Amino acid sequence: SCSLNLDEFPHTRYNPLKDEWVLVSPHRTKRPWKGQVEESKNPNRVRFDPSNPLCPNVIRPNGQTNPDYKETFVFDNDFPALFEYDDLLQDCDSSDPIHNDLFKVQPAKGSCKVMCFHPYSDLTLPTMKITDIMNVIKKWIEMYQELSSRYTWVQIFENKGEIMGCSNPHPHCQLWASNFVPNEINREDKNQSIFYKKHGKVMLMEYLNRELKSKERIVLENEHWVVLVPYWAVWPYETMMLPKRHVTRIDQLSEIEIEDLAKIMKKLLIKYDNLFKCSFPYTMGFHFAPCGKFLNEPQDHWQLFASYLPPLLRSSSVKKFMVGYEMLAQPQRDLTAEKAAKQLRELSDTNHYLIHS
Amino acid sequence: SCSLNLDEFPHTRYNPLKDEWVLVSPHRTKRPWKGQVEESKNPNRVRFDPSNPLCPNVIRPNGQTNPDYKETFVFDNDFPALFEYDDLLQDCDSSDPIHNDLFKVQPAKGSCKVMCFHPYSDLTLPTMKITDIMNVIKKWIEMYQELSSRYTWVQIFENKGEIMGCSNPHPHCQLWASNFVPNEINREDKNQSIFYKKHGKVMLMEYLNRELKSKERIVLENEHWVVLVPYWAVWPYETMMLPKRHVTRIDQLSEIEIEDLAKIMKKLLIKYDNLFKCSFPYTMGFHFAPCGKFLNEPQDHWQLFASYLPPLLRSSSVKKFMVGYEMLAQPQRDLTAEKAAKQLRELSDTNHYLIHS
Ligand SMILES: O=P(O)(O)O[C@H]1O[C@H](CO)[C@@H](O)[C@H](O)[C@H]1O
Ligand SMILES: O=P(O)(O)O[C@H]1O[C@H](CO)[C@@H](O)[C@H](O)[C@H]1O
Repeated sequence: SCSLNLDEFPHTRYNPLKDEWVLVSPHRTKRPWKGQVEESKNPNRVRFDPSNPLCPNVIRPNGQTNPDYKETFVFDNDFPALFEYDDLLQDCDSSDPIHNDLFKVQPAKGSCKVMCFHPYSDLTLPTMKITDIMNVIKKWIEMYQELSSRYTWVQIFENKGEIMGCSNPHPHCQLWASNFVPNEINREDKNQSIFYKKHGKVMLMEYLNRELKSKERIVLENEHWVVLVPYWAVWPYETMMLPKRHVTRIDQLSEIEIEDLAKIMKKLLIKYDNLFKCSFPYTMGFHFAPCGKFLNEPQDHWQLFASYLPPLLRSSSVKKFMVGYEMLAQPQRDLTAEKAAKQLRELSDTNHYLIHS
Repeated sequence: SCSLNLDEFPHTRYNPLKDEWVLVSPHRTKRPWKGQVEESKNPNRVRFDPSNPLCPNVIRPNGQTNPDYKETFVFDNDFPALFEYDDLLQDCDSSDPIHNDLFKVQPAKGSCKVMCFHPYSDLTLPTMKITDIMNVIKKWIEMYQELSSRYTWVQIFENKGEIMGCSNPHPHCQLWASNFVPNEINREDKNQSIFYKKHGKVMLMEYLNRELKSKERIVLENEHWVVLVPYWAVWPYETMMLPKRHVTRIDQLSEIEIEDLAKIMKKLLIKYDNLFKCSFPYTMGFHFAPCGKFLNEPQDHWQLFASYLPPLLRSSSVKKFMVGYEMLAQPQRDLTAEKAAKQLRELSDTNHYLIHS
């Protein structure tokens, strides 16, 4: 085994899902911070704001009135990055093969949905009831089923917090469906497929089993789900949420798996909120086998997972800047995955800092 | 040729350097913005701050006194992400081949330098003299030569602006040298090499020639250098700076190429400052052929270039958030490369908004 002290010396770790490396510099959090500090507003939200287009019964900028919804509510993004249009692309290839390799373009079509989690603007997933979170998961599955025959990929994602570019405090997420498989899904598809062919096993099932034995990077576990800090995590408190069973797509989750997912999500998000005593910002989303024409191809190399990618490093107001070296060369992190997992593991997962303190 | 109207309809463009795609949604800047707005401080800097560790003659936190430097000044980062240590790594492989594919780790050794551009804290590259900028470029080359025999990669990069995590207003950059080739260099190496083998031509030379003919995405040009918005740009006002000659490494630049580089850098950075009337934040850095053991291998597939990656989208206070869909699926941009190039092209490159307005 390995005699390099990973707690003390810089090293690179490999991400087998992405086929890329992360630089881990365990001692770097010691440097003093003189840079930008985020405004740390404490959530002082109103339950209903008649000017917020995500609230029930309000009129959205496009003139439509929201229903008096009681659980979740899905509508088309009024400013979509992807939409349907007539295919005007006839022939973008020129007779110059070098030109064709340098100037490749494809029409991008799709659908962008916004999904409200709850009628109340002052709630977040960690302060919602388990049954309400189960409604959210069931709506994800319903929307996925609606979009998956027509599109090759449906990205379900939540941007939470102003620091993550989230322009509305109402609890919500988005679904962007596309006629193409995006870069990150493509990469993970390729690498999981190579592993499956080489070893005859599902990469992330093998990975999960080894993590469950070592326990070093496990944050939470219940009967059907595990939350861990991946060995190759990039963001300081990044986590991965995996079902214990081999699940290739989100609509394969059973009722009890949905309930356990709601429970482990709530516990993780309470831990996150407790970490820096703030409504913890993050980007989260699900990855699983692509759909559309891929629905008819074997996808056993895939395992469904959710990623939580939070920007904070030292406190509610100091984030990790992924700039400079990270943008141009390689991601770099300032504490080990093991240390982050230990910190998260030791935090309460039932007492929310606001509600029970 | 192509009948898709790229100004109007969402499409994906291919980045041949990275072998990945960007989603372009040309109409998206129309959506209203209710999200985070950056504090837009106007530069009201002091020339000399005795508590700033980058100023001449001050005592740094580690007890060392800075020299009374008159041009540039380089020192070792006091909190380096990479340093030299005894190689304790003996054998990290286990007898389990699946384990070896999932838990790969390598010792990361290197050197992290900080380089001050000028003794005055209230200057920035666009407000410095051409001769001073030439001193900076010559110091980059000198440092590169010092580090390139020992290390396989030297990343020269500048983080400018608090929004980019830059923790010190004094004009400076960093150099991180490593015993490994980082992900992004690796990717570009691979894709340029494939192109070179396939076409017998240098990818970026072919690309540049075509861009010079079309002119659509050119921002600036002088005798030896070109600045353009790459066809596959991700950040709203991202640019690429290329020499007209085939140059594989930074120390191959001639005196006149160094002078022309200083001139085109200054012009570009004046344009950037004028765009939103602020000291324009960005990450910038150079990519070229790797060094160390690669110094003895043919690297003709490489072409040197600088990348400018600025975060701002709409104004000095509204940035593009690369979150959610971008982090989990694929980068997405809200205006075309052609539109960004036109905007930058039409801005003054001599009258700085502060100095001459
Ligand atoms: O070294 P600095 O300027 O303090 O730090 C900045 O640049 C580094 C290299 O890009 C990043 O790793 C840090 O996250 C960022 O805050
Ligand atoms: O759609 P929103 O929440 O207004 O916008 C946010 O999420 C999008 C999808 O990740 C990003 O493209 C935007 O940059 C970000 O501000």
